[in-house]
Amino acid sequence: MPGFFMSFIATPQTMHFPDALPLQSGKHIRDYTLAYETYGTLNADRSNAILVCHALNASHHVAGVYAGQPKSEGWWDNMIGPGKSVDTNKFFVIGVNNLGSCFGSTGPMHTNPETGAVYGSSFPVLTVEDWVNAQSLLLDRLGVAQLAAVLGGSLGGMQALSWTLQYPERMRHAVVVASAPNLNAENIAFNEVARRAIVTDPDFHGGDFYAHGVVPQRGLRIARMIGHITYLSDDVMNQKFGRALRNGPDIQFTTQDIEFEIESYLRYQGDKFSGYFDANTYLLITRALDYFDPAKKYGGSLKAALTRSLAKFFLVSFTTDWRFAPGRSREIVQALLQNGRDVSYAEIDAPHGHDAFLLDDPRYLAAMRAYFDGIAKEFSA
Amino acid sequence: MPGFFMSFIATPQTMHFPDALPLQSGKHIRDYTLAYETYGTLNADRSNAILVCHALNASHHVAGVYAGQPKSEGWWDNMIGPGKSVDTNKFFVIGVNNLGSCFGSTGPMHTNPETGAVYGSSFPVLTVEDWVNAQSLLLDRLGVAQLAAVLGGSLGGMQALSWTLQYPERMRHAVVVASAPNLNAENIAFNEVARRAIVTDPDFHGGDFYAHGVVPQRGLRIARMIGHITYLSDDVMNQKFGRALRNGPDIQFTTQDIEFEIESYLRYQGDKFSGYFDANTYLLITRALDYFDPAKKYGGSLKAALTRSLAKFFLVSFTTDWRFAPGRSREIVQALLQNGRDVSYAEIDAPHGHDAFLLDDPRYLAAMRAYFDGIAKEFSA
Repeated sequence: MPGFFMSFIATPQTMHFPDALPLQSGKHIRDYTLAYETYGTLNADRSNAILVCHALNASHHVAGVYAGQPKSEGWWDNMIGPGKSVDTNKFFVIGVNNLGSCFGSTGPMHTNPETGAVYGSSFPVLTVEDWVNAQSLLLDRLGVAQLAAVLGGSLGGMQALSWTLQYPERMRHAVVVASAPNLNAENIAFNEVARRAIVTDPDFHGGDFYAHGVVPQRGLRIARMIGHITYLSDDVMNQKFGRALRNGPDIQFTTQDIEFEIESYLRYQGDKFSGYFDANTYLLITRALDYFDPAKKYGGSLKAALTRSLAKFFLVSFTTDWRFAPGRSREIVQALLQNGRDVSYAEIDAPHGHDAFLLDDPRYLAAMRAYFDGIAKEFSA
Repeated sequence: MPGFFMSFIATPQTMHFPDALPLQSGKHIRDYTLAYETYGTLNADRSNAILVCHALNASHHVAGVYAGQPKSEGWWDNMIGPGKSVDTNKFFVIGVNNLGSCFGSTGPMHTNPETGAVYGSSFPVLTVEDWVNAQSLLLDRLGVAQLAAVLGGSLGGMQALSWTLQYPERMRHAVVVASAPNLNAENIAFNEVARRAIVTDPDFHGGDFYAHGVVPQRGLRIARMIGHITYLSDDVMNQKFGRALRNGPDIQFTTQDIEFEIESYLRYQGDKFSGYFDANTYLLITRALDYFDPAKKYGGSLKAALTRSLAKFFLVSFTTDWRFAPGRSREIVQALLQNGRDVSYAEIDAPHGHDAFLLDDPRYLAAMRAYFDGIAKEFSA
């Protein structure tokens, strides 16, 4: 598939929101900006809009490339574009960078207009529900009253799920990929270790490192290395790296230098990430993951929570995903079926673990195409 | 079981070795000390000795309690003692702290007699094979020509396996619990993240922190938190902690303070560990784990490697252990069967993950008792 379709030129945009957005914490944020991109054309009756929600390390740049930057494909460029599974010849696709992120929307590295100082550690703690509310305000400004679908993978899938509960009448489909109805204890544990690595880095300065002209890169590296382990399956790690040595056939007897290819890979990923990702954003986004739990106010009953939803659902999981295992998607499927909702579910036998949702698996891309083709048939292009 | 047997009094001992021990790295160590304990009595024909090998965070203090310290049970006190599965009324049990550890044997925190300075980062890199050689020298001094069995769990199991290849005639049984023939890429990856957390802690000072009067506690905390996640099963984490909050029924909207019980547990474990474990020891022991791979010099064939072994084997694995999954033990079983060796294997359906090898599972303790009773029948007490 790669190379078969030409990537189109994407143009990032921003929208400013002067009014205060009330947050779940009781705080608010005002005078904030959302970065977003759109692909395709909103049809005459404004019925073909798809909102794409992102996970931890992604943004509004979902598809296409930036002018003059041929390697700048959006993170779901293999899925979304002209003639692709989510066909931008048919759909008007909206990507939005979440509040608190570090790719263009207002985040902890920006100035708080109420104090004139950089937010840093005082940036409000956000939830999935807050993000969805902000996304909804963006849709108001874009003139989209009802979405054909909300689509997201991993944490993005949680946003799609939350959309069905917060704005049930404002969407017709929810497409939830490689996601879960909440984090389990192990998921929270990995997030917490990553956060502790960042927070205990002396360069973090309680979250106010901007003023010190430093970045807690040590902590970010560790956080990213941990993340990468959980994104890959055991199988694919053994297949890609196994016990291959970096420096020839023999071990070098060193505890601090690289010996194994897997170490080299993880250090490279950690270094790269620590060069561009914001430490406070990492804390905020992982905490939003921890907190998400729509069943909580229904005594833990996901079935009871989902009585609010009106959308048709398509859920996708991947057999080797141990971060959000297929069983977690099946919990959602089960709760929807108990509510008599219209739900499709594909469990893709893919070797790549959680990362599979971003990769070119033909069965996965075909299943997505089939579902979105079905959505497209519901409106006149 | 706990409380049913009285714990006996254990007495730590040390043995000094003036001669140089050649190491796999080509280096050597001399004038070193091994800390050890023995329980039970060596019989007249010296045929009832069991060597117990330890894993990362353990020592020669395998069973019993220290005088006046009723809470100081050895790490395998539930398994080993008078009337227990490994019955010290029948066996003479030897626990030894490995070289490079931080519980009494010579390690990086000690003075190098050749330089008069603390070893620190210059402590030689050790392998499982080096440990086994040192253990063998201790047995010489204890007058034990042949062991009834070598017993170990996790990394201790690797030592038991290595014993059968390094000293095949010096033992009759190998009991290998919750272990593996080598680490896979994911195992190495977790070790590497833990090591990076330690090495990049500014208080590590390249391994020579002793001279600075500091300890890289931040790094040790992170390392231990990662370790704990991999020791527990997903199921037992969900059952013990789930999504339970620490501070009442509602979230507090904080990214740096504790919200979930699992966070509190991990931070507690990390704090405790960082207060007593040596950072260089952590690097050394995890590296010995990474390096262990007896099949390597046989072109990756474990079957070929195990042709050297003469011991009878008993292997035990635990269904929910995802660190050293049952499949890894089955690889060893398979290779032994291909060599026509005498091998027993128990796959215990236990919920506790890798930690199960240290816990009171009745089926596990019964299986061990049956095997060791069989060994005891081979000699006259």
